[in-house]
Amino acid sequence: MRSRTESPALDHGLLSPVTTGFDEAVTDAAIRDALVGTEAALARAWAKVGAAPTELADAISNAFARRDDIARAVDLDALARAAVAGGNPVIPLVGMLRSAVPAEAREWVHRGATSQDILDSALMVVAQQAAGETVAVLRDAETAVAALAEAHRNDVGAARSLTQHGVPTTFGLRAANWLRGMKRAAGRLEQLAADLPAQLGGAGGTLASFVQIGGSAGAARLPAAFAAELGLAVPHAPWHTTRWPVTELGDALVQVLDALGVIAADVATLSRTEIGEAHEHAAGGSSAMPQKQNPTAAVLIRSAAVRAPHLAATLHTASALAVDERPDGSWHAEWPALRELSRLALGASGTARRLLEGLRVDSDAIARNLRMTGSLIVAERVSIALGEEAATALIEAARAGTDVTAALAPYAASAGLDVHELLDPAEYLGFASSLIDSALEEE
Amino acid sequence: MRSRTESPALDHGLLSPVTTGFDEAVTDAAIRDALVGTEAALARAWAKVGAAPTELADAISNAFARRDDIARAVDLDALARAAVAGGNPVIPLVGMLRSAVPAEAREWVHRGATSQDILDSALMVVAQQAAGETVAVLRDAETAVAALAEAHRNDVGAARSLTQHGVPTTFGLRAANWLRGMKRAAGRLEQLAADLPAQLGGAGGTLASFVQIGGSAGAARLPAAFAAELGLAVPHAPWHTTRWPVTELGDALVQVLDALGVIAADVATLSRTEIGEAHEHAAGGSSAMPQKQNPTAAVLIRSAAVRAPHLAATLHTASALAVDERPDGSWHAEWPALRELSRLALGASGTARRLLEGLRVDSDAIARNLRMTGSLIVAERVSIALGEEAATALIEAARAGTDVTAALAPYAASAGLDVHELLDPAEYLGFASSLIDSALEEE
Amino acid sequence: MRSRTESPALDHGLLSPVTTGFDEAVTDAAIRDALVGTEAALARAWAKVGAAPTELADAISNAFARRDDIARAVDLDALARAAVAGGNPVIPLVGMLRSAVPAEAREWVHRGATSQDILDSALMVVAQQAAGETVAVLRDAETAVAALAEAHRNDVGAARSLTQHGVPTTFGLRAANWLRGMKRAAGRLEQLAADLPAQLGGAGGTLASFVQIGGSAGAARLPAAFAAELGLAVPHAPWHTTRWPVTELGDALVQVLDALGVIAADVATLSRTEIGEAHEHAAGGSSAMPQKQNPTAAVLIRSAAVRAPHLAATLHTASALAVDERPDGSWHAEWPALRELSRLALGASGTARRLLEGLRVDSDAIARNLRMTGSLIVAERVSIALGEEAATALIEAARAGTDVTAALAPYAASAGLDVHELLDPAEYLGFASSLIDSALEEE
Amino acid sequence: MRSRTESPALDHGLLSPVTTGFDEAVTDAAIRDALVGTEAALARAWAKVGAAPTELADAISNAFARRDDIARAVDLDALARAAVAGGNPVIPLVGMLRSAVPAEAREWVHRGATSQDILDSALMVVAQQAAGETVAVLRDAETAVAALAEAHRNDVGAARSLTQHGVPTTFGLRAANWLRGMKRAAGRLEQLAADLPAQLGGAGGTLASFVQIGGSAGAARLPAAFAAELGLAVPHAPWHTTRWPVTELGDALVQVLDALGVIAADVATLSRTEIGEAHEHAAGGSSAMPQKQNPTAAVLIRSAAVRAPHLAATLHTASALAVDERPDGSWHAEWPALRELSRLALGASGTARRLLEGLRVDSDAIARNLRMTGSLIVAERVSIALGEEAATALIEAARAGTDVTAALAPYAASAGLDVHELLDPAEYLGFASSLIDSALEEE
Repeated sequence: MRSRTESPALDHGLLSPVTTGFDEAVTDAAIRDALVGTEAALARAWAKVGAAPTELADAISNAFARRDDIARAVDLDALARAAVAGGNPVIPLVGMLRSAVPAEAREWVHRGATSQDILDSALMVVAQQAAGETVAVLRDAETAVAALAEAHRNDVGAARSLTQHGVPTTFGLRAANWLRGMKRAAGRLEQLAADLPAQLGGAGGTLASFVQIGGSAGAARLPAAFAAELGLAVPHAPWHTTRWPVTELGDALVQVLDALGVIAADVATLSRTEIGEAHEHAAGGSSAMPQKQNPTAAVLIRSAAVRAPHLAATLHTASALAVDERPDGSWHAEWPALRELSRLALGASGTARRLLEGLRVDSDAIARNLRMTGSLIVAERVSIALGEEAATALIEAARAGTDVTAALAPYAASAGLDVHELLDPAEYLGFASSLIDSALEEE
Repeated sequence: MRSRTESPALDHGLLSPVTTGFDEAVTDAAIRDALVGTEAALARAWAKVGAAPTELADAISNAFARRDDIARAVDLDALARAAVAGGNPVIPLVGMLRSAVPAEAREWVHRGATSQDILDSALMVVAQQAAGETVAVLRDAETAVAALAEAHRNDVGAARSLTQHGVPTTFGLRAANWLRGMKRAAGRLEQLAADLPAQLGGAGGTLASFVQIGGSAGAARLPAAFAAELGLAVPHAPWHTTRWPVTELGDALVQVLDALGVIAADVATLSRTEIGEAHEHAAGGSSAMPQKQNPTAAVLIRSAAVRAPHLAATLHTASALAVDERPDGSWHAEWPALRELSRLALGASGTARRLLEGLRVDSDAIARNLRMTGSLIVAERVSIALGEEAATALIEAARAGTDVTAALAPYAASAGLDVHELLDPAEYLGFASSLIDSALEEE
Repeated sequence: MRSRTESPALDHGLLSPVTTGFDEAVTDAAIRDALVGTEAALARAWAKVGAAPTELADAISNAFARRDDIARAVDLDALARAAVAGGNPVIPLVGMLRSAVPAEAREWVHRGATSQDILDSALMVVAQQAAGETVAVLRDAETAVAALAEAHRNDVGAARSLTQHGVPTTFGLRAANWLRGMKRAAGRLEQLAADLPAQLGGAGGTLASFVQIGGSAGAARLPAAFAAELGLAVPHAPWHTTRWPVTELGDALVQVLDALGVIAADVATLSRTEIGEAHEHAAGGSSAMPQKQNPTAAVLIRSAAVRAPHLAATLHTASALAVDERPDGSWHAEWPALRELSRLALGASGTARRLLEGLRVDSDAIARNLRMTGSLIVAERVSIALGEEAATALIEAARAGTDVTAALAPYAASAGLDVHELLDPAEYLGFASSLIDSALEEE
Repeated sequence: MRSRTESPALDHGLLSPVTTGFDEAVTDAAIRDALVGTEAALARAWAKVGAAPTELADAISNAFARRDDIARAVDLDALARAAVAGGNPVIPLVGMLRSAVPAEAREWVHRGATSQDILDSALMVVAQQAAGETVAVLRDAETAVAALAEAHRNDVGAARSLTQHGVPTTFGLRAANWLRGMKRAAGRLEQLAADLPAQLGGAGGTLASFVQIGGSAGAARLPAAFAAELGLAVPHAPWHTTRWPVTELGDALVQVLDALGVIAADVATLSRTEIGEAHEHAAGGSSAMPQKQNPTAAVLIRSAAVRAPHLAATLHTASALAVDERPDGSWHAEWPALRELSRLALGASGTARRLLEGLRVDSDAIARNLRMTGSLIVAERVSIALGEEAATALIEAARAGTDVTAALAPYAASAGLDVHELLDPAEYLGFASSLIDSALEEE
């Protein structure tokens, strides 16, 4: 039995199939690498502003240039265990890094920084990477959805409202609506990812330590130099307790899950045995029922969409409780919630791309379902075109199973309308086609 | 005893003092008025695009021009009761409105619309009004915070980290940080409020009914005409199941509460009997303890900030569960959550304005607290300027109660530094002052 | 236009149709009445323990014996407005009550109590009343579900897993599962409601004020006397900051919504146009589509079930943040969340009773859907009884549309089994019937 | 760079210091072991009811008797990757297990079960283990708190209400309140852990497969035999979609976090530099400020308490969305949420035990703070004993800094009371001491 003081690797994805294969960017190893990279970036920034000797900054940077170097210098389990005493991993990390660089460079490791500067900045680096991957995958998935919208532009089926057939629509328009949701979410995440700021405030958010070390002129240029090294935005000010960079990111991530959740809800519904309008390409098997073909990808995306709002809310709760110049617990609550939310966005996007690229649409089933209620699907149209009395006649005929066309013929005749055209669902699609066009064109 | 079928007025604010006096914009009466206004706007839009006779649209509009007209035509309790059968208030509302307009105008009431078109649009109108009020109040509150930041620019006190005195800061910088959080939140809400879209899709999101009624040309111009009548943005497309207008609004509202929550947490902390650095002007009394002066406004704002993340999360959960062309329950879950979140933003903003305009800062207490740990507040500076050995000497002297200046004198001398200047917290403020300036200038 | 200082009645239920007609127990008026009743109970308790003259306690009690008396003494809007200054309604309430009782009785109003004693106790009274109503309604609904389980014990249909037909089940067993969920939830709520404690601790939770007033002997008997007057449980100790009475109640309430949410999800699904196995008796109409019959009750229950977890979580967040001897905001956050959660439990229960009492089950549709996949519904059975090879033969025949009986005949023959019996879904129901029995019998 | 198809170990605890060293019971390895153990238990149960040959069941059981056997048969990464296709790890697990047992035993692996039977049961086994550990740790922590309550029974300090000094209390009573919260939470969790049911329903919750395999008599005894093998409670019925075992467990776990959150909030507050009434034994260091002693354990517990309500809410959301006979995504959402919540309860309990066992209470600071407001701390008492006029005199004297005793002497004299005794906070403690006694005795 392993010692109780070890920190075992908790999570190999066994309980989170939606993210398997997609969460490399947010592992503890990735976070450790980002922490080390952030410390190296600070040293380089000090050199850029002329405070640190370039060769010492280089020595630090070079010591951790490769992932192997980092892994050798910073054992993940040891770091995790040592993080307990001070409450965050940066405190012990600094010691590990100092041991791994030349003696003369040691003082430039973590120079002037507080642990929150490093951890916040590193989490932004990780989040930016994860967001970038998520957006890229979503863009691929958008291509797949756009193709569905185009291909099924003329597949006329039932629009459903409160679970009931209402009026006609097309499968293409449904896909176009999915596309709009994805584009909005991806666009917002992309924009936010480009604006994620570095954190650099020192112990009390005044940057006093940096001024003490580098003088006012050097310290004034330090945040921009640091941010540039990290590929992050220059912060307007330290944000140790004004946590909108975290919550806005969380909001954007959950919006991705919202958009994908809608697609998954539709696919799960359309895959129902009785509906059968869509099928996942690689429908999942069952451990008990050999004939089953489950909409597994949709199910997994739904599992992520159910969880995500609660994770984003955790970030808001934490944000609203930030107190003093550095918070007393709410900051620490953010880390795993932000990571898990990034992970769900990555995983659900990847799963959605797979789902969408392979989705098989059954045009026959769509058409068959459309006919289920006879001409009731155009009752609204009849009501508008011929009046409520005609609509009532339609409903009565349809329910009685008698000839709807005959029932409406006199009304149509007196209105000068073609009863067959009037009853054709394909003639009652409004702007379905142009709404597809605009969805495809939308940025 | 009142009949069980009545729908009593549930909420007079008894359990929500944070919103009392601020929630008029979001009452059921306000929502009823917006619903009626939205139906009238649709009639006028039909006239604008040339489909409805102007005089009939005017007849509808005029019938509900004044709040009294609306109240006479639409009894709130009756409407609420009638909303149960169909699940939303628009269905019975249409009947009530038709009874209140001239017979020849009746068909132009709710013409072509689905209930979600009206309810979503009306909720956006209400939300826009509430957001506008919230932003206006926040702008006033920002003025008050800016004045605090300016007035207390030189009040040097302890920056606290994980509840402990860390390094010096100023009260002004703390206020400046509050200001940044408020400005970011207000700015985002303002921008979103300007972009809230009208909803107009018809029963299945295709606008088929509108095309049937007004022809393609008329129907194509209808959404813009409708949005213009309502003062809302023109929708890119119907958003019956792509709910980002709701969730983005919710995210912006909770961000307001996050920003105000931080202020309230700080004020509650600074008001503690032992700390006493800030006091609310109109501190609250107690039913039991005659001497007490409670930071009531801060307490109430905190109560709102605790609740808000859960309400915003409700909107995301609902959004992610939207299915089909119109959802089967998640849409209905949005209404009270969005209203309550708007209400909390209104109330917390108003309460914060009151708090901030009256906040009394006790400079003496700030200075007294700063001195509590002797010169330990500058231990970081000593560590940087004179090295760790000197810092240890400082800490030992401070804990032993011996003369810190004497203990550090030899280190300072060899470094050529003035030990008194070195130990002066006011000399270790980094960019506190310029961070105040930039917060004041930030848009 | 009404004055900005008024506190308008916010909520007539317009945005919450699920609760309309069911929320009288939790209105602000009901809460005011409970607050007044709690103050009167305290006076009587003081008399019971011999500290207050009985005639003075009676004078207080009699002054507020009828709802009219209360309404005259305590204007709801005025109380709500006055609650702002101190942050809760009890502080101004005490003054209003003292003005309404004989001068000599005044000192026995609110004698020794802190506002939290009164408000917590009153909310428990209201919660107990609401929980009692909820349980009673659930018991009625259980009767309806039990009848469904019994009536449809032999309606063999498809069990669905991940949206796909899996194996046979019966509608009766589905109803029995609903019943188990309801019984568990109702039982837990009933038990909790009986254990809800009164609150009586005085300003700091020591009961020092009560000892000062009534001496140790009197004060020691006061909590029990007070609780008895209120019909609440005697508290083990003051629970000003140990909030499990609130969170356990919240947990039980959300469990009611969970159980009803499952029923609503099933009814919404079974009501789908393509499935049609169940229909609400009073299906809702549409403002646009005259033919529609929406599962409105299910939709409304779902809207409550989506919201409830977030409200229960609010109570936990508040509970975990309680600090000092009386909390600085988290207590205030509980009130509206607990009230809204009680309201949702009341409304969803009432709506569910209506739904369940009127639910029409379409046995033909159930049978028709069961046959949709041919004999695939018993593929698992064939696999167990005849082996995987036979199951594969079944699946192939079913997909090819050839004679499944013929395909399986040789396997059945060699196993000595009757192929017709083997393929009959009604013969593969396991313990469906006895599981119904035990659900009906379960306490 | 590792292949994108690998499933890297996500979490070594780097972002969750509160759980480090405490989460072994809930790792993916522990869950894998429980899954395998559950499959073995099913085989043994089949033997117990006489359906499977004992030697085959033993062969299965023996094949996975030791953790090494399991690790050899089931590679964690491979299992996680293979779990994606079907959406859960049980489907591929069955294949892996069958490959690792003698050929003749293969058919008795997973015999008749559905994947949810195995996964739910295994998660209950893991949850029971984690809950048992949590309760054991809480019991130790209770001992520490009880000692604090006893040791500081007479440390009279300020009771704080809305952050302000109110009346006197004792540190012992504060600890006693902590104790009550912990006992309630531990008791509830302990009871629930003993009642966690096994899951055994087969594909549709009818147990038809088990009847097919083992006959009615055998199948009827199978659930009890299976539960006994697992040390779980016998289920009343399959609970595939009636998820109260999961939500009640989640409610109990979050209640643990609520109780510990209160302690942490108090310790963080009492540790404040200005208050200083309590200090953690092993206060954490800072990466920047050498003098700091942070209440790190309290901070970490708070981080867990902020997160936990959102995780428990996830379980309720999932529960309320369960549909059909087996849910389409909400079930999958439960797994990581339940695991993380168990982990937080384990970690926060362990961290709290450490905090409480080492907590240093500063009696001098308590006494010093008590005196801060002069005799205002007994203003309530003076008001009760001598009337409001005397209380006003006290407040005025205290604020003016004049002699309070002199100011009250005339009032005390006319009441026949000793003014010194009246002003002594230690004489105004009500039932503080007996409330400590009852907390210590409470079960």
